[in-house]
Amino acid sequence: MLQIALAQMRVVPGRPDRNTETMLKYIANARKQNADLVIFPEMAIPGYLLGDTWEQTSFLEECESCGEEIIAAAQGITIMFGNVAVDWTKKNNDGRVRKYNAFFTAQDGRLVAPESMPYPFVVKTLLPNYREFDDTRHFFSLQKLARELGVATENLLAPIHLAVHGTTYAVGCLLCEDGWSDDYELTPTDILRRKEQLDFFVNISSSPYTLGKNEKRRRLFGRLAATAGAPLLYVNNVGIQNNGKTVYTFDGMNAAYDEHGTLRVEGEPYEETTQLFCLETLREQKAVPEKIEPDAAYICRALTYGVRLFLETIGMKRVVIGVSGGIDSAVAAALYARVLPPQDILLVNMPSVYNSETTKGLARRLAENLGCRYTTVPIQPSVELTIEQLESAKIENLFDGTTDRLSISSFMAENIQARDRSSRVLAGLAAAFGGGFTCNANKAETTVGYSTLYGDQSGFFSALADLWKHQVYDLARYLNEEIYKREVIPQETIDIVPSAELSDAQDVDKGQGDPLIYPYHDFLFRSFVERWQKATPQDILEWYANGTLEKEIGCASGLVGKHFPTPQDFIADLERWWNQFSGLAVAKRIQAPPILAVSRRAFGFDHRESQNGPYYTKKYKALKAKLLGE
Amino acid sequence: MLQIALAQMRVVPGRPDRNTETMLKYIANARKQNADLVIFPEMAIPGYLLGDTWEQTSFLEECESCGEEIIAAAQGITIMFGNVAVDWTKKNNDGRVRKYNAFFTAQDGRLVAPESMPYPFVVKTLLPNYREFDDTRHFFSLQKLARELGVATENLLAPIHLAVHGTTYAVGCLLCEDGWSDDYELTPTDILRRKEQLDFFVNISSSPYTLGKNEKRRRLFGRLAATAGAPLLYVNNVGIQNNGKTVYTFDGMNAAYDEHGTLRVEGEPYEETTQLFCLETLREQKAVPEKIEPDAAYICRALTYGVRLFLETIGMKRVVIGVSGGIDSAVAAALYARVLPPQDILLVNMPSVYNSETTKGLARRLAENLGCRYTTVPIQPSVELTIEQLESAKIENLFDGTTDRLSISSFMAENIQARDRSSRVLAGLAAAFGGGFTCNANKAETTVGYSTLYGDQSGFFSALADLWKHQVYDLARYLNEEIYKREVIPQETIDIVPSAELSDAQDVDKGQGDPLIYPYHDFLFRSFVERWQKATPQDILEWYANGTLEKEIGCASGLVGKHFPTPQDFIADLERWWNQFSGLAVAKRIQAPPILAVSRRAFGFDHRESQNGPYYTKKYKALKAKLLGE
Repeated sequence: MLQIALAQMRVVPGRPDRNTETMLKYIANARKQNADLVIFPEMAIPGYLLGDTWEQTSFLEECESCGEEIIAAAQGITIMFGNVAVDWTKKNNDGRVRKYNAFFTAQDGRLVAPESMPYPFVVKTLLPNYREFDDTRHFFSLQKLARELGVATENLLAPIHLAVHGTTYAVGCLLCEDGWSDDYELTPTDILRRKEQLDFFVNISSSPYTLGKNEKRRRLFGRLAATAGAPLLYVNNVGIQNNGKTVYTFDGMNAAYDEHGTLRVEGEPYEETTQLFCLETLREQKAVPEKIEPDAAYICRALTYGVRLFLETIGMKRVVIGVSGGIDSAVAAALYARVLPPQDILLVNMPSVYNSETTKGLARRLAENLGCRYTTVPIQPSVELTIEQLESAKIENLFDGTTDRLSISSFMAENIQARDRSSRVLAGLAAAFGGGFTCNANKAETTVGYSTLYGDQSGFFSALADLWKHQVYDLARYLNEEIYKREVIPQETIDIVPSAELSDAQDVDKGQGDPLIYPYHDFLFRSFVERWQKATPQDILEWYANGTLEKEIGCASGLVGKHFPTPQDFIADLERWWNQFSGLAVAKRIQAPPILAVSRRAFGFDHRESQNGPYYTKKYKALKAKLLGE
Repeated sequence: MLQIALAQMRVVPGRPDRNTETMLKYIANARKQNADLVIFPEMAIPGYLLGDTWEQTSFLEECESCGEEIIAAAQGITIMFGNVAVDWTKKNNDGRVRKYNAFFTAQDGRLVAPESMPYPFVVKTLLPNYREFDDTRHFFSLQKLARELGVATENLLAPIHLAVHGTTYAVGCLLCEDGWSDDYELTPTDILRRKEQLDFFVNISSSPYTLGKNEKRRRLFGRLAATAGAPLLYVNNVGIQNNGKTVYTFDGMNAAYDEHGTLRVEGEPYEETTQLFCLETLREQKAVPEKIEPDAAYICRALTYGVRLFLETIGMKRVVIGVSGGIDSAVAAALYARVLPPQDILLVNMPSVYNSETTKGLARRLAENLGCRYTTVPIQPSVELTIEQLESAKIENLFDGTTDRLSISSFMAENIQARDRSSRVLAGLAAAFGGGFTCNANKAETTVGYSTLYGDQSGFFSALADLWKHQVYDLARYLNEEIYKREVIPQETIDIVPSAELSDAQDVDKGQGDPLIYPYHDFLFRSFVERWQKATPQDILEWYANGTLEKEIGCASGLVGKHFPTPQDFIADLERWWNQFSGLAVAKRIQAPPILAVSRRAFGFDHRESQNGPYYTKKYKALKAKLLGE
């Protein structure tokens, strides 16, 4: 009988000391619970998303040394864990020291590995190099090692043999992507199971949470276990890790599938726990029912956890949130209020002459509902001073001795207001309050740069910037109904037209709002960013011409005809936003705060972009000319 | 006799239409000059640094279609060029359509390729995946193709055979990294030359300029040609390309080495030109002498070119530059004045009560020397208004009905000044002037975040942020002496102590300046970022203990003892800056403007980082305790 403990540990990236300490605690606990085997996630010691920290020799030495501590702790218990493995005698293709993303198995203070391997550990075979993943930048793959050794990769891939209580178990050891091999030229799970009948698979992962991934993983891993006729144990860390611009939550969701592919054991999302069970009686446990919640539930959980841990990571204990009475800032406030005590949250309303009594009242009601700190700092005097000062500045033309003056248009004055709020008031208040101020941008605005740099685009963190506007509304309702179970976000904030209130033309009381038609643009923009084959104006216009656009982008039907009566209207709108998306919005995103990622494609390191401007293909231009009757 | 034209073309990234047009012009010219063969750089049609634009199907189709235009143009002339090649029937490892970084040779409207290849083009073998390069993210390598076909890579690699005027030439076709194979498990040049005696090599590249790269390339390619006993022709594009945060210049420097490795033909840096020569008489041409210039000359050329093209790329015609009288802003102004006419440059001095008459005078003198536009916008009234407003704001504590007020410390007031200058004055003026405002940060400040977010850290572009402070001074002298040949940057600006002048404690007239000791910290910080094996406090402290620190980091000797009399002093300084570098400075860099890269390691996409905070290894802590006698 093999008692197994799956350690759903929190991995702190870049902190091998803390992670080793955590692991030693899990090991002591597992031993107390009479576990024979305790399994930790991929890269449990260093963490996974570390940027180029992998190029610091002293950091690699430290990880090795921490690994030795864990190996030494394997007394009377078998330990499986992920760590970076270094071959100091060999090189990577970048000329730096050879590094592997490795799977270690320690027993009685010694390492157990497949006999086929030249190293005492298993090497990750499939190295993801898409989205936020950069594995091939840092790690040498099993395929490259095989080529170097002059053998087939298949020869190196073999189960390990683990002797416990007189029984020997054949275990297929996988590292994360090794189990997701659909698009690769080799399938590690098939190679392993064909070598001999396996007693079980172990997949150690460091797998960022994104919407829909858990359902996909359950199907995939269930099928994999059933095909092999062997249980599959999945161990993933909790915590957050980031690549600078993009911050990911890790939800753990450790799992044990029996040999028929039925899920029998599952960890709670984002909890630091251990799942203990007996391998031989796994199939007798109650099957874990499939529980599908609305997207807002997953989003709320990921955002709450992500915000809490991000604040902890950067050592921030207080936040200032600019609240306009609108939806985005209200949701941000309601979210932070789940993480910080009310005395550590300062909501600030910063009216100019353009802000309505309606929204000012809503901002205050939100603060009252949350019971946090609240203040009002009008920006009118400062904005007027700025405009006056800039318009009266004497520009000396030193090339001809003349002088000039500049003038401020109403569009410029809008941006002056936005910057005044963020860079002057919020940044100043945040420093005095001993915290940071939040960026409340959503993904639709972020996509097309409908925001002001150093204005509403700024802040220490963007918790909502991976949510489309309709997801922000869903989250608002979910927070009221399911989390607070009362109207914390005023219903009127949910009901009024979204508006920046930066000019007379944006009067909420007259229903004048943003230029974005969210029920359509949310979906149009999503096709630019999240669609598998990213859509461009050519695709969009072809779908429009075929009458399949609404279906292709997934918006409600009837919207296109309603908002764009003619092809001229449709094309003008499409080009306006494509130009913004590929132009100024890229410049803004380069200077935007870090984004908490939940979608299938988040801005930042997950969606890499160059400031190259918009492009229209020949096919697009031809179809446009045809539609316009040119 | 084979007449060859090397096209040192400007490639505009993401603009296949413009690049195709450019190529057709070069082809027409080459034909006029009776060239038999015209060679274009790697990825001449799409450009090279495109982020994830490679995931847009319509963009790939467009590149294919443009490639067909070029192939069709190969009538009476042979054309070699780089383009993306798509196999629509196969997949990459990310599940998207199969893409190759490919080398095409077209003759009489048809493609010529090695008989060994399943495609009518040559596939890049070595895909760089370090620094700013992400080739493996997008392109399938020749090795992977070989594995898929079940053959050795060596079997696929073969010369092409080119028939011109009745003579058949065996040509080794290389794509950029294929010629830089030192750290790879196979050497394409060796494999090719062993197959048969080659008549020449062609290396088509898209190789970003960085300091020292040209010298290294000349040595490497000269040796390569000599070893093979065959001429080597190198074709690289000019222009700029970016990965969002990091902007690279491409200097072309097309070259022809004869079969002894002697450089016979070379393009001028950054010029759009053609090098025409006869293969058979190449060795009779005069050898190109090795010309080593001071670093400042290369930097000045790269920066001037980079700034000009970046402005063009984003369509910006005017700039506003905040000038303090200090060195960084003066160099920025002198640099932009080489690119834009004086009437399109507005220098702004923004004094507070802390700015000395000395620096105010220097700012004005700089503007007079450049003969551009100049204005003064004092920030004192606005800063006082802000402090007054923030301190008088009534904070309502809605949880207990009490009220509070916040207070602004002198440190907070420093940041308020910095933000007032940039986000209020410069951003407003820039909009009114019809341009952007520059960020004048240098690399030392950027490394440790000695700057204010939304203050001096902001701007549309950081032209100097890849230069250490001593390089900024070198550039100042070079601009005065070699470019302007007069004192444009006032000598006093070069001579005074660098200071932020944000408080009474930073009085330049009393010699009070920045907390950075640039002659030491420039080099300490460089070891964190640019050193091959990145240095960490552990390495630094070991060198300090061994007395080799100054030698290891390359600063002048005697500095460490002079500035840090005791180990306590030394360690306090080291930890102060390491904490900043790994902590708040990362957060600031995430929101910093794009950087023009010239060094061996620039911040941004070239030096990827996570916001994980500082780390100190066990070895560091032990050595620290020993040095402190604990």
